[in-house]
Amino acid sequence: MKYRQLGLIGCGLMGGSFALALRHAGLVDQVVGFSPSASTVNKALQLGVIDRSASSPAQAAQGSDLVLVAVPVAATQAVLQEIATTLEADSLIMDVGSTKCDVVHAAQSALKDKFACFVPAHPIAGKEHAGVEHADAQLYQQRQVILTPTGETPLARIKLATQIWQALGSQVSHMSPEAHDAAFAAVSHLPHVLAFAFMNSISQQAQGQTFLELAGPGFRDFTRIAAGDPKIWRDILLANRDEVLRQSQLFQEQLRQFDQLISAGDAAGLQSAITQASGERAGWHMNKA
Amino acid sequence: MKYRQLGLIGCGLMGGSFALALRHAGLVDQVVGFSPSASTVNKALQLGVIDRSASSPAQAAQGSDLVLVAVPVAATQAVLQEIATTLEADSLIMDVGSTKCDVVHAAQSALKDKFACFVPAHPIAGKEHAGVEHADAQLYQQRQVILTPTGETPLARIKLATQIWQALGSQVSHMSPEAHDAAFAAVSHLPHVLAFAFMNSISQQAQGQTFLELAGPGFRDFTRIAAGDPKIWRDILLANRDEVLRQSQLFQEQLRQFDQLISAGDAAGLQSAITQASGERAGWHMNKA
Repeated sequence: MKYRQLGLIGCGLMGGSFALALRHAGLVDQVVGFSPSASTVNKALQLGVIDRSASSPAQAAQGSDLVLVAVPVAATQAVLQEIATTLEADSLIMDVGSTKCDVVHAAQSALKDKFACFVPAHPIAGKEHAGVEHADAQLYQQRQVILTPTGETPLARIKLATQIWQALGSQVSHMSPEAHDAAFAAVSHLPHVLAFAFMNSISQQAQGQTFLELAGPGFRDFTRIAAGDPKIWRDILLANRDEVLRQSQLFQEQLRQFDQLISAGDAAGLQSAITQASGERAGWHMNKA
Repeated sequence: MKYRQLGLIGCGLMGGSFALALRHAGLVDQVVGFSPSASTVNKALQLGVIDRSASSPAQAAQGSDLVLVAVPVAATQAVLQEIATTLEADSLIMDVGSTKCDVVHAAQSALKDKFACFVPAHPIAGKEHAGVEHADAQLYQQRQVILTPTGETPLARIKLATQIWQALGSQVSHMSPEAHDAAFAAVSHLPHVLAFAFMNSISQQAQGQTFLELAGPGFRDFTRIAAGDPKIWRDILLANRDEVLRQSQLFQEQLRQFDQLISAGDAAGLQSAITQASGERAGWHMNKA
């Protein structure tokens, strides 16, 4: 398994890391990259993330037997529409989006008869800081990658996609786009909303800055995800709106229960509720490859 | 500055680490420890955290020129009552509790004329795992310690307490018990409630275990504090009830705003709210010594 040319559309942290990892694994001869930002393109060239730059997504896709679309999820449909005609019919195309139902719909609508080329992918990896300057050939090692093929996705394409991510050190699993979005609303999207809302809740108080100076290691870890990229998270939350709102309601019911136990001074009930949470968290271990 | 004898009441992570650090700094000749748990006492002896065990808090305080009360905050008053008569009138006594108004009230009521011996202290340090087996002489290095003396606390005692923590590598600051409790409700106590409620919200869903298997590094960091000790956190949340509930209401207002922006599909408003949170978090750095 070796690819002649990777067409990289979006040269940020996720796309840049994929290109570096693919090179590192000796799986690609050449990387052609497109980014709407000239400074990103220059950095990607300087860092050896891409070999040459394309002037459009279509040009990046042209002649590429492997295409990775690594753009904010809301931009996926426009990109796929731009590349649909130049895309080689036997190429493999993947994305790295954090939501999958919207991406699958976008791909069906944009790629039409070439939808069979597309294997939707979500690598569960990231860093606090975005941008190609943080791209890292090891980003996907020992991380989960979820593929969400539909009934129309040929098994051979799913197998190729699985092999690529496995070669980068990832643990690959398959689920439906719907199951994916329900799960990630719970374990990723809602926590981001909570961390955002929590930061705003503190900083909008008159004494907020004084409070923040006193915060320690617990706060540091709890709020790390609040530093996420605003456009990327705006798109994810809107793309997965119904599931995120459903998780938010379930969370708020639990929070109100805590408020009630605290308000009532119900020591036994409060200890029991914390014991449940604490035991569940202490027994949890991140699924690694 | 060297102490003849540390009376350590409560030999867990916080107390054990204080004893080890004090020894490590050459500041104490002998450590006498009390714990209600025989197995904790044995481990503390084996690990060299204490030199000998006391059969009661009063015995640990007797003859000690330095006393550290490192018990769950709700147990503070009972401990102080037990040691009030044996406490040397010129000794220095501190606690390590995460709430301070309740501790100051307990100390005033229990110690009476010996209240002048007491300097309330809150080291902003901890670990995911409690227990003397995790005690660490470096736990307080480069960590903040907040002292919350009252108008009745002699300046000489505050100075001694400050010198001790500084000698352990901590950065010491002083504030009123009320200001302390308001700040820590915001940056520590509420985040724990949110992490507890979030864990329970997931684990109570039919698919909760499947969801948890997919969780990644963001979830890991966001929920780390949910593994906190149930009894300790029960006590903290009840001791600081009014401030915690106030912070919870402020947070819920922000969360409802996020829900509304997501529900309305308000991309600009959502991006703006996330930008505020993300910028605030990206600009925050933990205050270290």
